[in-house]
Parts: sequence; C-alpha cells; structure tokens
Amino acid sequence: MKTLAEAFHHTLQDIYYAEKALTKALPKVAAAAQNADFKALVQDHVTETKEQIKILDKVFATINQKPEGMKCDAIEGLIKETEGLIKEATGVALDATLIGAAQAVEHYEIARYGTLREWARVLGNDEAHDLLGQILDMEKAANSKLTGLAVTEVNTKKAA
Amino acid sequence: MKTLAEAFHHTLQDIYYAEKALTKALPKVAAAAQNADFKALVQDHVTETKEQIKILDKVFATINQKPEGMKCDAIEGLIKETEGLIKEATGVALDATLIGAAQAVEHYEIARYGTLREWARVLGNDEAHDLLGQILDMEKAANSKLTGLAVTEVNTKKAA
Repeated sequence: MKTLAEAFHHTLQDIYYAEKALTKALPKVAAAAQNADFKALVQDHVTETKEQIKILDKVFATINQKPEGMKCDAIEGLIKETEGLIKEATGVALDATLIGAAQAVEHYEIARYGTLREWARVLGNDEAHDLLGQILDMEKAANSKLTGLAVTEVNTKKAA
Repeated sequence: MKTLAEAFHHTLQDIYYAEKALTKALPKVAAAAQNADFKALVQDHVTETKEQIKILDKVFATINQKPEGMKCDAIEGLIKETEGLIKEATGVALDATLIGAAQAVEHYEIARYGTLREWARVLGNDEAHDLLGQILDMEKAANSKLTGLAVTEVNTKKAA
C-alpha cells in the first residue's frame, strides 16, 4: 500500500468487513439488552447497518472494485469486548456497559468514515464523498441516540 | 458486575490498561511517521498519555481502589491494526493511514471517557467527574490536532 488511492481501497475493505461483522454481532446485543428502548434502537441499527453495506457497495463501484471485506482487527476487538460484557454483566451494569460499548463502536465508525470521506474529497471522488457522508451522518445520529439513552437510562435507575 | 459502581470500576480498569498499552505502542508510531509534525504530535501524546495515567491513579483513589489494568480487547485490536499498517504501508499511504488509525484510537478513548464521566456524575463522584473531564478534553484536543494534520498533510501531498 503506497498511494492514497490504495489506502482508500484498503480502509474501505476494513470497514466493509466491520459492518458485515456488526450485522452478526448486533442481534446478540439486542437479545441481551434489558431496556426496551435500547433493544429497539439496536434492532433498528441492524437494519441501518444492512443499508450502509448497500451504500458501501456503491462506493466500491466508484473505484471499479468488487465489494470485499478484509479482516479488521479493531472491530474484532470491539466485538470481543462486547461479547465479554454479555457474559460478565447483569442488572443495571449490563445495559449501562452495553450502551457504552455500542458508543465505542459508533465512535470507531465515525473516525473511519470521517477519514474515508476526507480521502475521497482529496482523490476528487465526489460520488464516494457524498455516499460516505450519508453513512457518517447515520453513525453520528445513532451515537446521539445512544448518548440520550445512556443519560436517561442511567439516570432513571440511578446508582442502583 | 451488577451495579453501576462495579461497571465504573471495571471500565476504569479497561481504560487504564489501554493507556498503559498506548505508552508502548505510540513510540512505534512516532518512529514510523514520516511527516515531522505528525511525529512530534505523537511524541507529545506519549507524554500526555503518561500524565493521563497519573490522573487515572487519582480516579482510582476516589473509589478507594488500587490502580490496576484489566486486558482490554478493543485497544488490543486497535493497536494490532496500527502495527499492521506500519508493516504494510509506505510512502503517502503510511502517514495517511497512521493518522487515520490514531484518530480511531482517540475516538475510542473519547467514547470511553464520555461514558465514565457520565457514570461518575450519576454516582455523585464529583472529583472523578472533574478528573475524567480533564482527560476527555485532552483526548478531544489531540483528535482535533490529528484532523488538522490529516487535512493539511493529505492535501499537500494530494493523491500522490
């Protein structure tokens, strides 16, 4: 990997792998979630993630590449951490830590899509810039909803 | 892990492990960085990370616990990804992807400190709330510097 175009393709494969992995991991989070609003939010985000994969297919098309994932160690680590919480946490701690873990995943994605969108701009790939901007906005909105939930949910149950 | 206080302690141990791991990983990034400004920024962040560990020591003290790390899968994954880039990338792609990876790490930390600070507030631990807010501000500032660098650096070299 030497050029920015190659870095763009490589990172796109990374996040493609990450989104695919999340379509399998998020239903486990939804099943474990206790709070109904949190459960619904995660379920909605599974649908949204599948839409994002379709948008990524279009981004691959702008660089004449086949949509393909490449193992992403970062998302593997984030998912492993989340699965650990499902095993280790119960009661108030379960939802609180799962919401926190979901926000860590959203922040990871916000960082990646921010980078990819900027690179698309520099590479003069306007279509990819717009498509990646769409996904970035979806991830930021998901993170804001989680923040709202974290504050409300945690506050309601106090330090129970 | 059942209560919010236990979740707080657990997550504090996670981020403590992460910061300690970063004091070892960041010097490798600084050594690999080509751009002088990026190299200096990472070197400064090593110093800053050591200061953050001292602040975390104080946070552990507020809950009468010994400062201790617990293996954090997420940071392990993020560091593994970064080490992969040092091996795989050269030229323009090296700095561009390393800056991107550093931003992914910062975003991860922003998510974690945001969660911990909120929990400290709910738990009525004002001292921890303030200390965690100090670190959160440092991480946000580091991320902003990286964004500035990403835009300038990537732009200067264009799609070379």
